[in-house]
Amino acid sequence: MSAIQQNVEAASAKYSESFTKGHLALPPAKKYLVLTCMDARIDPAQAFGIELGDAHVIRNAGASAVDALRSIVISEQLLGTTEIVLVKHTGCGMLTFKNEDAFGIVEKNLGAEAAEELRKHSPDLLPFPELEKAVEEDVAFLKKSKAVPESVTISGWVYEVETGKTRRVV
Amino acid sequence: MSAIQQNVEAASAKYSESFTKGHLALPPAKKYLVLTCMDARIDPAQAFGIELGDAHVIRNAGASAVDALRSIVISEQLLGTTEIVLVKHTGCGMLTFKNEDAFGIVEKNLGAEAAEELRKHSPDLLPFPELEKAVEEDVAFLKKSKAVPESVTISGWVYEVETGKTRRVV
Repeated sequence: MSAIQQNVEAASAKYSESFTKGHLALPPAKKYLVLTCMDARIDPAQAFGIELGDAHVIRNAGASAVDALRSIVISEQLLGTTEIVLVKHTGCGMLTFKNEDAFGIVEKNLGAEAAEELRKHSPDLLPFPELEKAVEEDVAFLKKSKAVPESVTISGWVYEVETGKTRRVV
Repeated sequence: MSAIQQNVEAASAKYSESFTKGHLALPPAKKYLVLTCMDARIDPAQAFGIELGDAHVIRNAGASAVDALRSIVISEQLLGTTEIVLVKHTGCGMLTFKNEDAFGIVEKNLGAEAAEELRKHSPDLLPFPELEKAVEEDVAFLKKSKAVPESVTISGWVYEVETGKTRRVV
């Protein structure tokens, strides 16, 4: 067992010992979802004030709304959420490369077949050159999507990894 | 401003007041990633023992490895992670429907164009009928993927929303 796997087991033993939330229902109690980045420096529950059971939390590289659309529609249409809080962040890795850079790295490290497999799965790796603009564009994408009804409230934010603050953009 | 947006602002003010982690680096310090479900009843940091800055956390509907491949490859090839901890959970919404049910609900609620947009984006919404089997299949998918090198350590787990326990499957 790896050190990381051992850590999961130890944390789980400790967490479950004092666990008292086994009664929570499947649909989020506060009917909202948070979409943010997979970045290691973000703890959504603490930073954005999410109580256990209250909200879906979707995370991917860059907090991409395009990438998250499947999960967002399932959240809303099957589990009743009616509000989206989208949070990108300062210092995001997605600000640091372009598609061709990334595919080039994969091809160099893992070979042409690996790069081709990734290209087929994700022809666009969804990097973005400007943070605030990317928040605006992702909110606009969701507002335009027919699969997200107009009744859904959508806001866009930036989390600052340097200060722990979250500020509204749109 | 909605009550949920007010809650984000209040939580952020409180969190940033005592924030001391502004120095953390972009690449995850412990070089691993956790892939789990967006389910509101999961707090990965607490349940799986993730310290701020240590690991990428990817979350989507069902903890789908197929859906997460873009983020996983970016995590590994651009940000140096070398281990994947994949955690699905009991009581998952993805156990409760089939693709045609979900597309039918979207069409009924939002119209044929919305269902068609979703179908184009995600022809498979990635539900699964059996929990443990789905964990095994997702781990197998990652092990088979050329874009995930053999050197990456992969384990598959189930989190029990009833007990707060995480147990290893594969």
